[in-house]
Amino acid sequence: MRTPTTETSRRYRRACDYLAAAMIYLRDNVLLREPLRPEHLKPRLLGHWGTCPGITFVYCGLNGLVRRTGQRTLLVTGPGHGAPAVHANLWLEGTHSAIDPGMTLTDLVKGFSWPGGFPSHLSPEVPGVVHEGGELGYALATAFGAALDDPDLLVACIVGDGEAETGPTAASWHANKFLDPETCGAVLPVLHLNGAKISSPTIYATMSDDELTDYFRGAGWSPHIVDVERTDDPDLVFAETLDAAHKDIKQRRPMILLRSPKGWGLPKEAGGGTFHAHQVPLSADQLPEIEAWLRSYRPEELFHDDGRPMDDLLDLLPSEELRLGRVPQANGGRLRRDLPLPELEKFAIDVPEPGGATASATGTTGSWLAELMRATEQRRDFRIMCPDELESNKLGAVLDATGRAFTWPLTQYSEHMAQDGRVLEVLSEHLCQGWLQGYLLTGRHGLFPCYEAFASIVDGMVNQYAKFLKMAGEVPWRAPVASLNYLLTSEGWRQEHNGYSHQGPGFINNLLTKKSSVTRVYLPPDANTLLVTMRHCLATTNRINLVVAGKNPAPQWLDLAEAERHCRAGAGVWEWASHPEPDVVLACAGGIPTVETVAAAWLLRRHAPELRVRVVNVVDLLTLSTPDKHPHGMSAEEFTACFGEDLPVVFAFHGYPSAVHEVLHGRPDPSRFHVHGYLEEGTTTTPFDLLVSNRMSRFDLAADAVGRTPGWSSRGGGIVQELLEKREELKAYAYREGEDSPEITEWEWSA
Amino acid sequence: MRTPTTETSRRYRRACDYLAAAMIYLRDNVLLREPLRPEHLKPRLLGHWGTCPGITFVYCGLNGLVRRTGQRTLLVTGPGHGAPAVHANLWLEGTHSAIDPGMTLTDLVKGFSWPGGFPSHLSPEVPGVVHEGGELGYALATAFGAALDDPDLLVACIVGDGEAETGPTAASWHANKFLDPETCGAVLPVLHLNGAKISSPTIYATMSDDELTDYFRGAGWSPHIVDVERTDDPDLVFAETLDAAHKDIKQRRPMILLRSPKGWGLPKEAGGGTFHAHQVPLSADQLPEIEAWLRSYRPEELFHDDGRPMDDLLDLLPSEELRLGRVPQANGGRLRRDLPLPELEKFAIDVPEPGGATASATGTTGSWLAELMRATEQRRDFRIMCPDELESNKLGAVLDATGRAFTWPLTQYSEHMAQDGRVLEVLSEHLCQGWLQGYLLTGRHGLFPCYEAFASIVDGMVNQYAKFLKMAGEVPWRAPVASLNYLLTSEGWRQEHNGYSHQGPGFINNLLTKKSSVTRVYLPPDANTLLVTMRHCLATTNRINLVVAGKNPAPQWLDLAEAERHCRAGAGVWEWASHPEPDVVLACAGGIPTVETVAAAWLLRRHAPELRVRVVNVVDLLTLSTPDKHPHGMSAEEFTACFGEDLPVVFAFHGYPSAVHEVLHGRPDPSRFHVHGYLEEGTTTTPFDLLVSNRMSRFDLAADAVGRTPGWSSRGGGIVQELLEKREELKAYAYREGEDSPEITEWEWSA
Repeated sequence: MRTPTTETSRRYRRACDYLAAAMIYLRDNVLLREPLRPEHLKPRLLGHWGTCPGITFVYCGLNGLVRRTGQRTLLVTGPGHGAPAVHANLWLEGTHSAIDPGMTLTDLVKGFSWPGGFPSHLSPEVPGVVHEGGELGYALATAFGAALDDPDLLVACIVGDGEAETGPTAASWHANKFLDPETCGAVLPVLHLNGAKISSPTIYATMSDDELTDYFRGAGWSPHIVDVERTDDPDLVFAETLDAAHKDIKQRRPMILLRSPKGWGLPKEAGGGTFHAHQVPLSADQLPEIEAWLRSYRPEELFHDDGRPMDDLLDLLPSEELRLGRVPQANGGRLRRDLPLPELEKFAIDVPEPGGATASATGTTGSWLAELMRATEQRRDFRIMCPDELESNKLGAVLDATGRAFTWPLTQYSEHMAQDGRVLEVLSEHLCQGWLQGYLLTGRHGLFPCYEAFASIVDGMVNQYAKFLKMAGEVPWRAPVASLNYLLTSEGWRQEHNGYSHQGPGFINNLLTKKSSVTRVYLPPDANTLLVTMRHCLATTNRINLVVAGKNPAPQWLDLAEAERHCRAGAGVWEWASHPEPDVVLACAGGIPTVETVAAAWLLRRHAPELRVRVVNVVDLLTLSTPDKHPHGMSAEEFTACFGEDLPVVFAFHGYPSAVHEVLHGRPDPSRFHVHGYLEEGTTTTPFDLLVSNRMSRFDLAADAVGRTPGWSSRGGGIVQELLEKREELKAYAYREGEDSPEITEWEWSA
Repeated sequence: MRTPTTETSRRYRRACDYLAAAMIYLRDNVLLREPLRPEHLKPRLLGHWGTCPGITFVYCGLNGLVRRTGQRTLLVTGPGHGAPAVHANLWLEGTHSAIDPGMTLTDLVKGFSWPGGFPSHLSPEVPGVVHEGGELGYALATAFGAALDDPDLLVACIVGDGEAETGPTAASWHANKFLDPETCGAVLPVLHLNGAKISSPTIYATMSDDELTDYFRGAGWSPHIVDVERTDDPDLVFAETLDAAHKDIKQRRPMILLRSPKGWGLPKEAGGGTFHAHQVPLSADQLPEIEAWLRSYRPEELFHDDGRPMDDLLDLLPSEELRLGRVPQANGGRLRRDLPLPELEKFAIDVPEPGGATASATGTTGSWLAELMRATEQRRDFRIMCPDELESNKLGAVLDATGRAFTWPLTQYSEHMAQDGRVLEVLSEHLCQGWLQGYLLTGRHGLFPCYEAFASIVDGMVNQYAKFLKMAGEVPWRAPVASLNYLLTSEGWRQEHNGYSHQGPGFINNLLTKKSSVTRVYLPPDANTLLVTMRHCLATTNRINLVVAGKNPAPQWLDLAEAERHCRAGAGVWEWASHPEPDVVLACAGGIPTVETVAAAWLLRRHAPELRVRVVNVVDLLTLSTPDKHPHGMSAEEFTACFGEDLPVVFAFHGYPSAVHEVLHGRPDPSRFHVHGYLEEGTTTTPFDLLVSNRMSRFDLAADAVGRTPGWSSRGGGIVQELLEKREELKAYAYREGEDSPEITEWEWSA
């Protein structure tokens, strides 16, 4: 192998920088073999130049490191709007041609930011990419997720100094404390300080070298500063820095502070070095300036006529399989193996009759997850990320099978901590989500249990991830990755003690706005249905599975075989609580609403024995959708079998009523569905009072059923009053005694 | 004034710690004048002990500082679950009695976490509170917001070491770079390192003193360490530290790292000093241990029988008006003054006829906001918080009136930066939101302009703020604060260049789940309606106003007088585009959908002149709700006047169609509304192609109108085909030419 010189490195970067600029400007004459004419310009100049030269500088430096060391390296690029730089590098390293042999350089340059071509930001269509970067903030957490349990992998991560201002990035610097050097790979962050955001200075670029060094050393890093303007040979300095960093990367946790001018290479008079270089620095009416700038890269010295780079540039490339665009981890679906999911039998709750057992749904699933942890002990491809709530969410059994990862010295009493633990607990939903995304996209499996109310903290992230999955599913060479599984518990109805801030089921609503190819929402009503649901979710790919379940001891309804059947159908009539020819349907979705609904049916049998009631339980919320809107939507026949043709339906829903109205949209006569749910009436009170405040108690449901049933609104007046009086009596009990009446807590289900 | 001794300080803390513990445990015998019996315990033991003694330590230390210096001080308590400590301090300082003279100590102790009493977390019901703290992460940003433009105020902020792990908190440490020492107050953070979260060590507590010092010094602070276990007299050390910090607080930016044992004061054998002290450390069946622990505080030495503290303790209090629970800034509505809102006339766009002018909606409003900035130059009670997008959002005119606040040395080229600037630009939606919340709750006004897609980053925060406002509105002594105003622009339909990640209108959906007393959603279709809307929003109180508007030059529909009328109605028929006896309604909400709808009506006049069309524009989305669901809901008559009784309605909506379905729920026959909106089909393409991908182009709307109108579905087949062929032709143009056809971009509205 010839040894490339620094001069060749500069030529290589010149080639990439030229291509990146060309992608922003040119639709034709892409190598400037002819004088530049107006018709060679794209009619809309789109792209972000400012960050591109820096990205290429890092990319090329990493090429050198990989070539010299054989280190398999995944690059996570935070500034996704610098896509032209990545495309340029993919072109030079031959990855674009490897994936699409017919692609010409004109196709690439013209196709960038062109309808039907490559988007302006990094996206799943781009090889080597596991991170989109449009929303900013999540690159570093994603990089850490990718490095977990892959001890031979180096994950380099470019963090823009704009992105560094975000909260999720600021928190992610501490992720080094969770990365076990033995069992995990390394993360090498490159904080790219080019000084400006869209139109103002960045915080980190205004910090002095001393401040930066203190800050990152304090966070546990060994910072190296590379300032391309303080050296004659930045490529050499960067190469030496990378070599030094790589040598003992797991011991010293190096990171690089890279100072370079914004839009490096753009003439000063065109805004080079200032925020004016952020996007498209020269406008179409500055044709001579554009041409002069583009020609300053002397493309004729760098490319053959057909777009192939000159041979000497190829010397700078790592061996084919190690090129950054082709690292297998970036197409993690190819590495994914099905999980060895344990049988459910030995974990299932024995339910002799409906209501005849009491169990914690998450507690039961916790034992099963512990078994899964044990089954993956050698493979190390399953993890749980959780914001400090595993115990609180009754999933603590998992900690008997593995510890909580933590690598910093523990000075105080603690339990269940382990360098190589596969539970990650940090009080940051952002970190949990970012870690999990990086872990899944590189071919592994995981679960994110979370307090229900606080899942909304990652609404923005899940929005972006849903987009990533939707697009990835349309890219033929991307293999499916394991689904992103949420287990939301500590649900609002049982946050009567933590109060109003802990009561918020809106994550469901947010997920319902996503593509139906991606999203699933499950509300298993008891322990066995949760087991079946979790086993299903962990076997699926390319989805976002949202599971909401209770953690508190609660009545159990279905044995395992019934749970399997019920979950397979997604929704169904609970015959044991139903009359064959009903006047009214009591439907429910979610653990607590199911308890209240069954109790309401019980009340009606007592108070209105002639009112014929059917109980329907919905596990898979999207079965309510019409089949043209969601693949899980029930057929019209199935829907009618549950809800009748024109029966009134009193629907007790776990979340905001609007979520049910939304999924029912398109069903005939949805106005016969009277949905009860969370009305944002909350505080610290008893569980029963919280239900009453939101008109979701068994008494409210039973009274509504009477009131909604044709022929009963007048005749049932006395019954309704009886029910509501009882409700008030029990509410008064709670206010007087500070706890719910035994009439509620010791309800006899078999009555 | 007698000089209190350290011994008195300890007694004071003993009194507070006792009360806090009592609140968790006791319903009666609250001063333990009798032996503790089981019936004295609450039936449900709820609360968080672990953080309480530390909060009291800080509160008491601050009392001393205020007493010694007369420094007006607002306390923001991050660990809101430590509410018992704050209540205890409020009791001792007499604030509870000042607000509710009838309250007894038994009322307070028993009422904590009791139905109808005080919630378990800090909340608007608690005097002195501007921050709830349940979700964790926002205390420090809130504190900075409170300190802005209040030069004599000290805002002390307790940050728990759990909360410190969150992204928003991690980002907030850099907020010191935005706080002008001349025109603003000071923030004194106290990072409370008690070592553990719910069940595991915290990151920050495992960092060494050197690491912590480096980290915070790097972030621009002067850290002081106070470790209560490394001194015999923690009160004295803390007092000296506070005095030293206070002396040159604006120059040195001190912060305090407070190490104290978790649950400090709880016996070791009960879990004191470990995570086991986090919540309720002893269970009801440990009555002797509970009694022994509670008696260890010797309440008989601290309280009179009637609950009044012993006289010597009162020596520790600041003068009445400076007590932390009574600082006026904590009830900011009392300080709020109406803004001097400029007249709109001189900013309004001249619109000689509908479509007869072109303007940028946000650009126009930007000039008006600049005038408002000038009008508040002396008052300094209006600010704009924006994630680095003011220029990009075409609001840059504001920067002619004030600069961007920044206090760190600027080493590079920049524009519009100013120490005392009243625009805050940081690439963190979390910081913007937190700052604004703190600013509003202390009596000022503000605006949060944001890229539409990235507003979801603060979904969690707005959830919590909506709860805060809802509850604050129910507290009689809280005066209304200025509304939280969002101006979402750079909307998805014109993020065709930044691509899919920048396309997401889900913030609307999230807001729709909130209490109708709090939320408003406006979609002004042009510049003058935006002006009128913004003027309205900035005059309201206690609301969350979401305004979505375009920034790109676009056709204008209404002159100022018409805009005033239209906004007052919230929705209405656009007669100039309508037939008096329509067959079908074309409705629209949002700038781009309005353009497409008017164009669709234009197309129909050409292609189907016999089809009688009415155009309805909706500015105030919640007028569509029924009046029982939202106070802005139109009456049935008004609704019919817009949409007829049974006309088909083709509705072009800015966001997800589900949002319209949701607000329409409860209107008779909502299935006649056929809603077009964003279907999560996005990428980098042309504006027209993005519309086509989501079936929202003028051709799709016109074709749907034909198809939905009774009698036209067969007869209109040819017209539909004509329209869709034209659509495909123009789409093909975009793919071929890389821009939209002049047939779209140069549409003649007067045709």
